[in-house]
Amino acid sequence: MLLAWPDPMNVARYLPILDWGRDYSRATFGNDLMAAVIVTIMLIPQSLAYAMLAGLPPEAGLYASILPILLYAVFGTSRALAVGPVAVVSLMTAAAVGQVAAQGTAGYAVAALTLAVLSGGILLIMGLFRLGFLANFLSHPVIAGFITASGILIATSQMGQILGISVGGHTLPEMLHGLITHIGQTSLITLALGVGAVAFLFWVRRGLKPALRRMGMGARAADIIQKAGPVAAVVVTTLLVWGFDLGAQGVAIVGAVPQSLPPLTMPDLSPDLIRALLLPAILISVIGFVESISVAQTLAAKKRQRIDPNQELIGLGAANIGAGFTGGYPVTGGFARSVVNFDAGAETPAAGAFTAVGLAIAALALTPLVFFLPKATLAATIIVAVMSLVDLGILRRTWIYSRTDFAAVATTIALTLGFGVEIGVTAGVVLSIALHLYKTSRPHIAEVGLVPGTQHFRNINRHDVTTDPAILTIRIDESLYFANARFLEDHILNRVVQDCPIKHVILMCSAVNEIDMSALETLEGLNERLRDMGITLHLSEVKGPVTDRLKRTHFLDDLSGQVFLSQYDAWHHLTRAVAAAE
Amino acid sequence: MLLAWPDPMNVARYLPILDWGRDYSRATFGNDLMAAVIVTIMLIPQSLAYAMLAGLPPEAGLYASILPILLYAVFGTSRALAVGPVAVVSLMTAAAVGQVAAQGTAGYAVAALTLAVLSGGILLIMGLFRLGFLANFLSHPVIAGFITASGILIATSQMGQILGISVGGHTLPEMLHGLITHIGQTSLITLALGVGAVAFLFWVRRGLKPALRRMGMGARAADIIQKAGPVAAVVVTTLLVWGFDLGAQGVAIVGAVPQSLPPLTMPDLSPDLIRALLLPAILISVIGFVESISVAQTLAAKKRQRIDPNQELIGLGAANIGAGFTGGYPVTGGFARSVVNFDAGAETPAAGAFTAVGLAIAALALTPLVFFLPKATLAATIIVAVMSLVDLGILRRTWIYSRTDFAAVATTIALTLGFGVEIGVTAGVVLSIALHLYKTSRPHIAEVGLVPGTQHFRNINRHDVTTDPAILTIRIDESLYFANARFLEDHILNRVVQDCPIKHVILMCSAVNEIDMSALETLEGLNERLRDMGITLHLSEVKGPVTDRLKRTHFLDDLSGQVFLSQYDAWHHLTRAVAAAE
Repeated sequence: MLLAWPDPMNVARYLPILDWGRDYSRATFGNDLMAAVIVTIMLIPQSLAYAMLAGLPPEAGLYASILPILLYAVFGTSRALAVGPVAVVSLMTAAAVGQVAAQGTAGYAVAALTLAVLSGGILLIMGLFRLGFLANFLSHPVIAGFITASGILIATSQMGQILGISVGGHTLPEMLHGLITHIGQTSLITLALGVGAVAFLFWVRRGLKPALRRMGMGARAADIIQKAGPVAAVVVTTLLVWGFDLGAQGVAIVGAVPQSLPPLTMPDLSPDLIRALLLPAILISVIGFVESISVAQTLAAKKRQRIDPNQELIGLGAANIGAGFTGGYPVTGGFARSVVNFDAGAETPAAGAFTAVGLAIAALALTPLVFFLPKATLAATIIVAVMSLVDLGILRRTWIYSRTDFAAVATTIALTLGFGVEIGVTAGVVLSIALHLYKTSRPHIAEVGLVPGTQHFRNINRHDVTTDPAILTIRIDESLYFANARFLEDHILNRVVQDCPIKHVILMCSAVNEIDMSALETLEGLNERLRDMGITLHLSEVKGPVTDRLKRTHFLDDLSGQVFLSQYDAWHHLTRAVAAAE
Repeated sequence: MLLAWPDPMNVARYLPILDWGRDYSRATFGNDLMAAVIVTIMLIPQSLAYAMLAGLPPEAGLYASILPILLYAVFGTSRALAVGPVAVVSLMTAAAVGQVAAQGTAGYAVAALTLAVLSGGILLIMGLFRLGFLANFLSHPVIAGFITASGILIATSQMGQILGISVGGHTLPEMLHGLITHIGQTSLITLALGVGAVAFLFWVRRGLKPALRRMGMGARAADIIQKAGPVAAVVVTTLLVWGFDLGAQGVAIVGAVPQSLPPLTMPDLSPDLIRALLLPAILISVIGFVESISVAQTLAAKKRQRIDPNQELIGLGAANIGAGFTGGYPVTGGFARSVVNFDAGAETPAAGAFTAVGLAIAALALTPLVFFLPKATLAATIIVAVMSLVDLGILRRTWIYSRTDFAAVATTIALTLGFGVEIGVTAGVVLSIALHLYKTSRPHIAEVGLVPGTQHFRNINRHDVTTDPAILTIRIDESLYFANARFLEDHILNRVVQDCPIKHVILMCSAVNEIDMSALETLEGLNERLRDMGITLHLSEVKGPVTDRLKRTHFLDDLSGQVFLSQYDAWHHLTRAVAAAE
């Protein structure tokens, strides 16, 4: 792992903007601008909504979308990724910041800034040290389970806004308890607005586009109108609240939002706060990175472009540090907004820059218009968005394919719902690694014989093969390392003790990719013990790198038998030797 | 993992005594008794010395050897293992108990009892749940490094007693600082006694037996006399102190030791103490178990006996709980004492029971005799014993064989010396697992071709093989799982992008023992992307269990190419197809 410091000749590597910026044309500009308009319209309500989910004032969502987008445009490698607040990271922010400050206090907002800067610093360091591979240790089932459980948590948390009651809590039991306790205080007008908005948004998502097409509208126009659906919900419910003065009848509204460009803000880098937020910041960084990179790679593959994961870390790191100094909170590349950006025809990160300008105008000029916007509408936006994240089918798919993967996904879902996002995802990662180690510590060991008429050796329990009573051939289907070496030794010793005629044991190493020091010492012991019993130990099909390493030890000299290039050679040689001895 | 509860029909499984007790004969009795006499003589000074190392009064070492030996005789499976205080566990006890109480206080002794009971409980639970395999996750290099570093720490800690000064500390820098600070207070008489004892004991170990044999003595008699060497050192130095009243001249002596059978003692099971001692107890249990099981298996192999690791856990658990209720501290099967027991002819655990009786007599009757025993003699006993544990050659051997193993062993040694036993062994375990995961996350991937005249395929960089420009055969030398799936995908995509004529990619799966859900999803993606590029993906040599699992998914239906039983079939079929297409 080399710290690849930018050298002056290679600065383009760290500034992908120099790559695409060079060929920027008027046609590209047009496409990017069009995409930016669509994404801006979509992002205004979404940004307000996710800030609410994170427990922050609505403007924080806008601020978190402006400078971060610009910074990602400079440092990121994806041409279509749209960076900003996303649902899961907003939920994780609420959970992390809620542990150090009360919602609504100044300390809460400062902690959110600090979390963004910490998370940005972690991403930046991971990028500079090229540690992007660490994200691979999050298995797909763990991610799928975590996202699903987060979606359920988010939807449940927003139910309170729909009912017009306060819920609180960061776990499903807490939220359900809050809902049940306060259900009597339900505001019926709020409920009507919220349910109406949810129903409308689901219809927009599923039914609007086909209806418009049936009415003869072009695909692209229908698409744009569909994207504007949430804006329509916002406009209509805001007008209803304003027109009927529903705010006075108990409907919670967004209220006054400052008219301002993103302010310059200072995170609080006191050691106590950093210590409290470090672990959440690591989790947010890793989850955010995984979400972002998978979106970026999916979109890049469609245009045969490549994503550099380590440069992505730098881009996201810069974006998060930017968010921390401009009144935002942790951000990442979001799935929905990126897909919209891509579908709308964005060709370069300049589309993101134009979106940032659009949102800056909104922050400066449009915020008075959301004064009467009911929070229930924002909650409806969130609920409809996150329902697409919930995929309980992963439980069935993993159950069919592999009980180990099922255990990882089920545990991740259960612990995320029951104990919150941080414990859930940490347990998922630890469990998938532990289960992997447990599996490899009890590897599959097959006794093999010759498939007649070929030079192939297969499992005697699965194929009709030729064997010799004096020769035991064991194929171990795993690298030999400290956790499984003793298992193999026990298996072989138990097998030969039961079976007297065995004179030769061949260890077929076609699947042995490594023999570590512990396993080497175990093999040395096995060789000795078999020799004491009058049994010769042979190896076959040992791979090049493994052979090279064994040659540096005394093992091959001490080995009672031989090393054969192929199992067939071993079989051919030893069956003759056995026959000659009889 | 099944909790195997003792059913009435199978009680012998949990009481190995019912097995060997049935055939107990007079000849066996004679052999066991002889072994017990020799072991008892050796254990008296050793028990006192190890108690001193653990920071406890000398009698604690005797008490820790009596009931634990009896309990192990009932529940253990090894016929020669001698259970009691050992050097490394004594050092770990001093480190753990020193964190919760000051040496010499009543709280210190109670904490040691509690540690023994906790450790016993952990071992018992591991045994009942059949978790003995967990010990396999301690790699040999980590154990070797830990034992070596512990030996150095122990020898250094005892230097203070040899010099007659107080040292203190649980890490090498602390100990060296203590030695240097107090070196001016060295008691020259103590130093003379200590150095004399060390020199004498080394001579006994190395030179006495050959000298006796040269004088015509039989091997067995020479052996017994050699074993009595430490007793001679004890007797001579005690007489010197008594005769010349050296105690009054500053030589630290053992002093009054109560004349008593092991007392009934009560551990302190308050939640605070348990919380403080839980992690050390886990480490002591695991290290003790690993040390004990390796001794037991080495000795059992010499007589073609089998050791049941899970029953060993139960035996050691019972022994430790016994130690905790009878004034002792954590115990395990010791290497030196077990080998002596075995060499002296012990045939059954009854030898251990007789040793316990011998030590009980010593505790009752002989303790006044050690009043004038200088502590420097005990320190000399410890130093000579632990020098055989120190094996710095492990650094050279691992360096030559594998840098990964070297990193694990060097880190373990450095951290154990620098930060103490608990941090050292924990870091060693975590590091060996992390390095293993890192290695498997970047597996060896070979491009292979046909060895002419055979059906074998080997690495094109190592062998002179036949290839076809339209066919790329990739052999991945590792199971496919979440941590390495993306690595393979990147490798293949980078390879085919560079090389236009490729029409077929064959993934040779002879070393793929598992494909987990994450890897399956990655392969699905790879199949799609290669299809988009007009390249067909094939699999060959897929193992039975892997095939079974893939058949439960849509992957094999969606695969653009075929699955071939052997790589040769794939080659044969595809080279013809390519030739026909041209």
